[in-house]
Amino acid sequence: IPLSAGLGSSAATSVATVAALKEYFGVGSDLERIRSDAHAVELRVQGAASPIDTAIATHGGYVLVEQGTVQHVQLPALQLLVGCVDSIPLSMGTAKASDLSLKTKALVAGVRARKEHFPAIFEAISNAADELTVEAIQALEAGDTIKLGVLLNSNHGLLDAIGVVPRRLSSLVKVAQSLGALGAKVTGAGGSDELGGIGSVLVLPGRNEAKIRAAMELEGALAMPVRTGGAGLKIEQFASADR
Amino acid sequence: IPLSAGLGSSAATSVATVAALKEYFGVGSDLERIRSDAHAVELRVQGAASPIDTAIATHGGYVLVEQGTVQHVQLPALQLLVGCVDSIPLSMGTAKASDLSLKTKALVAGVRARKEHFPAIFEAISNAADELTVEAIQALEAGDTIKLGVLLNSNHGLLDAIGVVPRRLSSLVKVAQSLGALGAKVTGAGGSDELGGIGSVLVLPGRNEAKIRAAMELEGALAMPVRTGGAGLKIEQFASADR
Repeated sequence: IPLSAGLGSSAATSVATVAALKEYFGVGSDLERIRSDAHAVELRVQGAASPIDTAIATHGGYVLVEQGTVQHVQLPALQLLVGCVDSIPLSMGTAKASDLSLKTKALVAGVRARKEHFPAIFEAISNAADELTVEAIQALEAGDTIKLGVLLNSNHGLLDAIGVVPRRLSSLVKVAQSLGALGAKVTGAGGSDELGGIGSVLVLPGRNEAKIRAAMELEGALAMPVRTGGAGLKIEQFASADR
Repeated sequence: IPLSAGLGSSAATSVATVAALKEYFGVGSDLERIRSDAHAVELRVQGAASPIDTAIATHGGYVLVEQGTVQHVQLPALQLLVGCVDSIPLSMGTAKASDLSLKTKALVAGVRARKEHFPAIFEAISNAADELTVEAIQALEAGDTIKLGVLLNSNHGLLDAIGVVPRRLSSLVKVAQSLGALGAKVTGAGGSDELGGIGSVLVLPGRNEAKIRAAMELEGALAMPVRTGGAGLKIEQFASADR
């Protein structure tokens, strides 16, 4: 998973580390406990963390988080394209990486400031996003990818309205849309131009996957085909060399 | 005014023609009557028309339209950049021009269809837009261009959420934003990729006007500095040659 690109790499790392440590020290616990411990780690380290990322990394599939409560939902898998710009290379030093992580905090702080200045606007946008989620779940249940695509596009606009769509991510979304993608949006993380525009987009490509993928790569993005609904945490035992 | 680019060229033409005909036939009437007659012409020809465009073309300055009622408001002038892509050349034949005008109808029909499919989402977005307008008027009254810019950016996102932001206009807005514009948005008309992506954007450039203007021109747009609050209809008498 590309780092610091809004794709949940820190959640995946936290979940895997918590699970490995529990296993190593023989204090294995159930998945839900691993999830909440990993989420607690993220909260402590980052100050703020979405419970969605750790829930997905632990349980796989689809999850719905309402008021902090994690609910596992059964929905059909989807073929998506993830486009990612300017992710942090694995070779990056921790000082630089932690600097970028401060940028995420600045992004969140910017959204919070706008929300405090314009509470009525943000409440209306939040209501629109809630309605969108309800409709999107129904579209997924019905396998209606055309409807889902319209909802992805609309959600992208709402994210732009709260100020988390930088130029390069916007460009990826618009390229995909103009090439016939059913829908496209920035991921939850988003980004901002002042903070380097790092981040990812999600594309529901429909029949034009190859063309859209090529166009995203021409825009300088890492374009990855992804199938949703994958497995979550998997604990594998292996014989150590000195046993 | 570039034609069919969402800049009110048809309203300006209607108002000027109605006023000239009234003057010629000696049935001169007050400005408000000219405005409503010109709006009626637009409605008959286009099927649908915003009362805003004819109101501005007649009265100049700023107008606020609520439930069809036109209200003249006094607000300070602003220095803006208007960026316009793919406007219709004056030399274009009427058949082609009328084809493009059908495209505007298709754009409006697309928004209406999405609104009918997702009434709750569109109502929430509409509430957000209403709140935004109230805040924007306050920002204009206070001369708070920083606040106004944030609101322009947010309004752009809402327009994207209802599906009227095509790739090239999006690109102009994002270029301006990333170069430090206080705010940027597509104009009311918007556009769509399937319909050629014709349209205009409005930029509140702040201190970076020259840089943003150059960047918009590099994107292939016609970039025009515009000062708001200009005069409306002006009837000038001139001596004809045979009198």
